[in-house]
Amino acid sequence: MPSPRPQDHSDFNLQQIINDLDNGALYDARGHLHSLYPAEIALLLRSLPTDYRYRLWKIMAPEAMGETLAALHGEVRIGLIEHTSGTDLVAAANQLEPRDMADLVADFSSEVREKVLKKDGNSRLEAALSYDGHTAGGLMSMDALPIRGDVTVDETLAYLRAQKTMQANMDSLVVVARNNRYLGMVSIATILTSDAETRISTLMDTAEAIPLNMPVAEVATIFEQRNLLSKAVIDEQGIVVGRITLEEVLDVIREEADHAILSSAGLDEEHDLFAPVLVSARRRAVWLGVNLFTAFLASWVIGLFEATIDQIVALAVLMPVVASMGGIAGSQTLTLVIRGLALHQISSSNAMSFLFKEMSVGAVNGIVWSIIVAMIAAAWFSNGPLGMMLGGAMIINLSCAAIAGVLIPLFLHKKGIDPALAGGVLLTTVTDVIGFMSFLGLATIFLLA
Amino acid sequence: MPSPRPQDHSDFNLQQIINDLDNGALYDARGHLHSLYPAEIALLLRSLPTDYRYRLWKIMAPEAMGETLAALHGEVRIGLIEHTSGTDLVAAANQLEPRDMADLVADFSSEVREKVLKKDGNSRLEAALSYDGHTAGGLMSMDALPIRGDVTVDETLAYLRAQKTMQANMDSLVVVARNNRYLGMVSIATILTSDAETRISTLMDTAEAIPLNMPVAEVATIFEQRNLLSKAVIDEQGIVVGRITLEEVLDVIREEADHAILSSAGLDEEHDLFAPVLVSARRRAVWLGVNLFTAFLASWVIGLFEATIDQIVALAVLMPVVASMGGIAGSQTLTLVIRGLALHQISSSNAMSFLFKEMSVGAVNGIVWSIIVAMIAAAWFSNGPLGMMLGGAMIINLSCAAIAGVLIPLFLHKKGIDPALAGGVLLTTVTDVIGFMSFLGLATIFLLA
Repeated sequence: MPSPRPQDHSDFNLQQIINDLDNGALYDARGHLHSLYPAEIALLLRSLPTDYRYRLWKIMAPEAMGETLAALHGEVRIGLIEHTSGTDLVAAANQLEPRDMADLVADFSSEVREKVLKKDGNSRLEAALSYDGHTAGGLMSMDALPIRGDVTVDETLAYLRAQKTMQANMDSLVVVARNNRYLGMVSIATILTSDAETRISTLMDTAEAIPLNMPVAEVATIFEQRNLLSKAVIDEQGIVVGRITLEEVLDVIREEADHAILSSAGLDEEHDLFAPVLVSARRRAVWLGVNLFTAFLASWVIGLFEATIDQIVALAVLMPVVASMGGIAGSQTLTLVIRGLALHQISSSNAMSFLFKEMSVGAVNGIVWSIIVAMIAAAWFSNGPLGMMLGGAMIINLSCAAIAGVLIPLFLHKKGIDPALAGGVLLTTVTDVIGFMSFLGLATIFLLA
Repeated sequence: MPSPRPQDHSDFNLQQIINDLDNGALYDARGHLHSLYPAEIALLLRSLPTDYRYRLWKIMAPEAMGETLAALHGEVRIGLIEHTSGTDLVAAANQLEPRDMADLVADFSSEVREKVLKKDGNSRLEAALSYDGHTAGGLMSMDALPIRGDVTVDETLAYLRAQKTMQANMDSLVVVARNNRYLGMVSIATILTSDAETRISTLMDTAEAIPLNMPVAEVATIFEQRNLLSKAVIDEQGIVVGRITLEEVLDVIREEADHAILSSAGLDEEHDLFAPVLVSARRRAVWLGVNLFTAFLASWVIGLFEATIDQIVALAVLMPVVASMGGIAGSQTLTLVIRGLALHQISSSNAMSFLFKEMSVGAVNGIVWSIIVAMIAAAWFSNGPLGMMLGGAMIINLSCAAIAGVLIPLFLHKKGIDPALAGGVLLTTVTDVIGFMSFLGLATIFLLA
């Protein structure tokens, strides 16, 4: 059998596991699982409908459970935890390093969590549990492996060799003074290429460490902008408490991107794709309800012009064009601003320049498309003035859409509300209301006179 | 002055640079630039309106130009290149390693590119230029630093020390046989903690290397799923040609996320936020034109029922509700599928289960909201049957929206079209047409009888 291309790898795994489970070939399924990395098993579990998922989980080797659960989060993980015995959970947690263990046991029942905590040598877990998950403290591992600045290169190499095992992702060492006070970092590459008698303190990079309470998004920005592989984390007293590596940052970036995409549709990345129908329906209902309010607001605006529509039915036929084009133009601007805010590309310093640019773009496109739309409408209904009203409304709505597309996300951002979540609904409200109001309003004034 | 929090850091930089430029304090601006990392300067340049951008670029120290241009892409970079002398460009390119140099000179005019190529020692650049930017070849650096499997740990350490300088991000070494044929990788941590006389071949991990022509998205998936920091790249003959590190993968993931968010609004990540108004307007116009077609299709459907609306104007008032709720519900499903496809969570193996689930969610929410909407409409217009028609249309449209939300992206994905780009437009077309058709159709059949 040819080995599948990695891109199709996960689809292939999924199909094979489903076949195995359908055919009761549990031995084959287990063998197949055995050949996968924990993150691949995690993806498989997330991609399986719940009945398959729990059947597969039952045949998982207990020694693979820890890393697999660590690679999952949200509902899928909680569901699997509920389908695992307390003994297996305690064993699974104890396979993990303190940070991942702390993250996992947070989803355990209090009894099982107590059992994990009672195990010997879990004082680091207690420390890990005390850190806020949204800060550097929740992101870091505690394997900083600090060395003193006054030792030589040769002494450091001897010390490392004595460790016997060392994290494979250890690209650099944290240099400390007495009491573990942070001094700097020294890369292993530097150590390896320096003379044996050189003091570490002369080789180290003294760039600032990351404070324990720095929000994860800031940590990610620093890693990205400075091309870091790892960085020490310090507490308020400047004592080294852990280390963050690029791998953790990658997870943060992946989650942020996920969140940005999902929240624009009122969805949450913690939810299971195969959650029970009623659970999913209830969640989605909230978003539909919020949008229903918007929709009825638009209806109410149209209702104000019932008498006008009663006389010129063509207005009812054409009115969605104005609202929809405004929505599209506005959402382009909105998307640019939301992304610009996330990447720190837009701020109060350049918002005015950008607003002015977007208004100009909106006006240009408003004029261009209003002419086209006006001609189509005038020809369709053999009614020139009707076309002109439609065109006029388009110019108004596209200009307002540009303004709303800039100001709504800036306002939400300032108020601490996620613009990706609420921006779209608010924008549509504006473009619908202004779209219907301008078109039907212009028609009432000029066509019914 | 208190040092700003990194989150506000970039906003602070931007404000300061704008102030400096406004006040003609070029010396201050240059000093400020000097304190920033190339990626920070790149962000600053992207965030500046073009006139400020080029004024700032003029005072850039030439030795910082290379890395800064490497951290930029698309229009912003091309614009800066046009504002730089050929001599400075050649110097800037020569500050970079072959991969980044190849990426940069691709944006140069052919004359300047020729000058870079003619410089001595740029044969690696020619090789780098021959690789496809969308594959592992375009992503890799050529600093693999291979060692032979039959050397000992001590010999390796001596060899590394003799290198004098070594990439700081060198977490592991590529192990090769004769002729640079790939054998495996060995982490520096393993080398450091092993006995001096151990042969490297007994320590190495023989996991497969990445083929030169593997698409970058697959490379990213492999790095993420296997928690890799670096990996060797080989050609068709199994010869080591380079090395990819997690830093490059991070860029890929960031760009993919960016692309997913922007393309849903018909935008492109290569474009300058501060492109000239007419250029931006023309680009956005394409998307507006595509959507105008959708909007007029919806109008055409409404036009079919002009006679019905003429008799019952309330239909015109309520019809946007059905279309808009269908659009919202459908886009929730669409978003889940687009994300599921990108993360390999949805494939042909589980698409049917997911479709069934989404249809059920759509039906449940269709029923729930149709009752609410029907009651509101019935009360508003004192017309029970009208409310029932609205409710019935909602159930039809939300169910169809769920089906379209699953099938449209799956179909586009199969055809090799980016579902994030085209999915939204197609979905809206479906939900608009079905929304208006079902509501006005039901009304024509049951209310005009």
